[in-house]
Amino acid sequence: MAAASNFYTIVAGVGAGTGRSVALKFAKTYPIALLARNPANYESIVKEIKDAGGQAIGISTDVASESSIKNAFAEIQKEFKGKKLAAAIYNVGGRFVRKPFLELTLEEYEAGYEANGKGFFLFAQAVLPGLLESVPSSPHPPSLIITGATASLRGSANMSSFASGKFALRATGQSLAREFGPKGVHVAHAIIDGVIDIPRTRDWPVNGGVEDGKISSEAIADSYWYLHTQPRSHFTQELDVRPYVEKF
Amino acid sequence: MAAASNFYTIVAGVGAGTGRSVALKFAKTYPIALLARNPANYESIVKEIKDAGGQAIGISTDVASESSIKNAFAEIQKEFKGKKLAAAIYNVGGRFVRKPFLELTLEEYEAGYEANGKGFFLFAQAVLPGLLESVPSSPHPPSLIITGATASLRGSANMSSFASGKFALRATGQSLAREFGPKGVHVAHAIIDGVIDIPRTRDWPVNGGVEDGKISSEAIADSYWYLHTQPRSHFTQELDVRPYVEKF
Amino acid sequence: MAAASNFYTIVAGVGAGTGRSVALKFAKTYPIALLARNPANYESIVKEIKDAGGQAIGISTDVASESSIKNAFAEIQKEFKGKKLAAAIYNVGGRFVRKPFLELTLEEYEAGYEANGKGFFLFAQAVLPGLLESVPSSPHPPSLIITGATASLRGSANMSSFASGKFALRATGQSLAREFGPKGVHVAHAIIDGVIDIPRTRDWPVNGGVEDGKISSEAIADSYWYLHTQPRSHFTQELDVRPYVEKF
Amino acid sequence: MAAASNFYTIVAGVGAGTGRSVALKFAKTYPIALLARNPANYESIVKEIKDAGGQAIGISTDVASESSIKNAFAEIQKEFKGKKLAAAIYNVGGRFVRKPFLELTLEEYEAGYEANGKGFFLFAQAVLPGLLESVPSSPHPPSLIITGATASLRGSANMSSFASGKFALRATGQSLAREFGPKGVHVAHAIIDGVIDIPRTRDWPVNGGVEDGKISSEAIADSYWYLHTQPRSHFTQELDVRPYVEKF
Repeated sequence: MAAASNFYTIVAGVGAGTGRSVALKFAKTYPIALLARNPANYESIVKEIKDAGGQAIGISTDVASESSIKNAFAEIQKEFKGKKLAAAIYNVGGRFVRKPFLELTLEEYEAGYEANGKGFFLFAQAVLPGLLESVPSSPHPPSLIITGATASLRGSANMSSFASGKFALRATGQSLAREFGPKGVHVAHAIIDGVIDIPRTRDWPVNGGVEDGKISSEAIADSYWYLHTQPRSHFTQELDVRPYVEKF
Repeated sequence: MAAASNFYTIVAGVGAGTGRSVALKFAKTYPIALLARNPANYESIVKEIKDAGGQAIGISTDVASESSIKNAFAEIQKEFKGKKLAAAIYNVGGRFVRKPFLELTLEEYEAGYEANGKGFFLFAQAVLPGLLESVPSSPHPPSLIITGATASLRGSANMSSFASGKFALRATGQSLAREFGPKGVHVAHAIIDGVIDIPRTRDWPVNGGVEDGKISSEAIADSYWYLHTQPRSHFTQELDVRPYVEKF
Repeated sequence: MAAASNFYTIVAGVGAGTGRSVALKFAKTYPIALLARNPANYESIVKEIKDAGGQAIGISTDVASESSIKNAFAEIQKEFKGKKLAAAIYNVGGRFVRKPFLELTLEEYEAGYEANGKGFFLFAQAVLPGLLESVPSSPHPPSLIITGATASLRGSANMSSFASGKFALRATGQSLAREFGPKGVHVAHAIIDGVIDIPRTRDWPVNGGVEDGKISSEAIADSYWYLHTQPRSHFTQELDVRPYVEKF
Repeated sequence: MAAASNFYTIVAGVGAGTGRSVALKFAKTYPIALLARNPANYESIVKEIKDAGGQAIGISTDVASESSIKNAFAEIQKEFKGKKLAAAIYNVGGRFVRKPFLELTLEEYEAGYEANGKGFFLFAQAVLPGLLESVPSSPHPPSLIITGATASLRGSANMSSFASGKFALRATGQSLAREFGPKGVHVAHAIIDGVIDIPRTRDWPVNGGVEDGKISSEAIADSYWYLHTQPRSHFTQELDVRPYVEKF
């Protein structure tokens, strides 16, 4: 087993919530590459990690664009030359559209798939060769961890765009778990069932406004780290999370 | 309640199996429009229906193309002027790709979504206004019936293309059932779990080659007709079907 | 294939709703035995069937009692001597308990299992030998059809008694489908998700009191008949049903 | 928040595998009570914990007996007087019966429910008042953690006894999660999908006999501890686990 410092991680989809917390968590152990479309979404996180003595780069990336993904991974390879991939987290939200079905444009409907279908396909093809190479030398089984949502399990009125994307993401995640699990790569899917507690949602009257009625993104980061550190005799493929007061 | 002859139906995705049987079944009651990319897939069915005294048209259509769908529905409206839509069946298979994930091209991965995500979106947007108009005058609650598969419920190794499309289709179907059910439109999803008995599969050694080890497409047509004729107090949203010897 | 008149059916759990409608439906084709704890629950149905020219017997039975089941089947065998079993329907509701968990007595908790676990076990053991004997001579594949509920799929607050029973019923139904399907017996499970329209529920303010907001028991009977008449190449194991306005 | 030493935990169902590992794990933090029918199943674990400086008692208990449960909890209350309950783990396997359905005795069928339905009901009623009392003073949200299995999700041929019990257990667990979650108690259900690596299974030719082809019980203990330490803003209700090579 090699030292953790010979390995790095990638988080696609960082911003104010889950992505940031996951990045800070994994950066305590591994150098990290952060992908987001808008540099404003990763710049402060990169700084925060570096200030804490960690190693991080941010790359402006559109995960649904082949060329953008290609460029991002070329840059990652250059930056982390000689290191191997320990974990890749796919946390891309994409454009969220909630609308009566007959008012949706094709582009709005496809927004769900763009981010969670096509984007994940391109990301997974880019990271899986590196994850396979890390078997069995990495400190923990190399991991591909995926952020799902309530809409991964059920389609709801006005939610066909988001649900079709999240269903497609889960389908692909299951396919990869069944194909790459036996090769030693841990593919896990987390169903985030609730509102995440970030500045933007602070005033949302969720669950009657009770304390802890929104999900702590630090707790999500802990769960992703827990998933990453599971031994290969005990892989969790799927778990759900929700605040204690959430209806389900 | 108006006479059935004032209503018509549409079947997208006809060929040798389910589509043909469904078309023949519904054509006993309603004039019918058949959509398929290749005229060879509908021509003989149109003839068969007409020879039996029914009314049918075939339209060469690529359901994943906005303009092709638009043209098809313009032609349908012209052909069935004055009639209302009783049922629409979405039975598009699309291109089936089974391959190790890292060998998939983006185009191959997206084939699943093209047919079952995008194609169904365009089809559903085209038929739902007509189905809504038929509430409550049609002989049975206006119906949108969708063909799913084993891969609608689970992603498998080498199956991410097909599974992501079928998951997206199911997500959209559930969303529509929850949005349009209360408006009187019956949206139902059938999980076809097994090989359909058509000329192309006749020699496949499925289920040890036992009699009835493949699904009769006539029986699928019966189930779609049964779904169509359910009253609105008793809508089935999902059912599965498989041969008696199928492992599941 | 023998004439339908050489076959009979059994319905366990008859009363004002599903059981009565199912009995009337199947009695159009087969002589029928009706089981209920209380004769008041079957007497009028037996009369109704006989008045319509059918053949029916009612037997006072506690399905959760080995001796009661034994007596009932001895009586059925005597009554329908020389006939074979075409279908058996398990529609036992049992005692419905909805209570905060810590207020439940053991007996109340077990009421769910008594009716839907133990009762179904005893019933299934009594009917399966007869169903197997009817393969392949019966007009349709011999069928064991089970009534499930919303609580077959999810446990809810205050519902552990009913949900544990309905989950156990579904587990056993799936086990039987997988064991006896390949032997030609059709085991199907219907998830009744909504309130059934019977005298007792007539004034319940379900779904805003809209017309058809409760499930028609005649429609359930139609769906059970449809399940019974499916050919063995096309067995449905599970379907759900709910009124068009039901939230789900 | 009180010190962990003012809290204790209970594990029902200890032996060579999961129960032992969970006990050792939780005993590092809390005094612990171990329940098993046979003293041989807990004696060595109690000794192991005490030798390591921990505090443990073992109580011979039949969880499916009201009086036995009553006696056990009276003894626990005496032993841990002044302490509060931090976590309760239900890990009772019960008698495992795998047999063709028509060969099952009623007693064999009911073995599944005895252990996983009735036994869990009695255990949950005994621990929930204590768990509620520990809100919000305990170091972590008071937890009720339940061991499920592959058979919690699907019934299989010859498996109706075990599956009906595990389905009933899951139903009750979901009901409790929805009733007691909002009161601050964390109810979680783990689906153990694979063979656990214990002396008895060491030579089973599972997954081709590859290394790590059976589940490490220490890893299960880690997952239960992870579940226990989740904050109330982020409760996992269900997770699955299986070896990397397990088919699913």
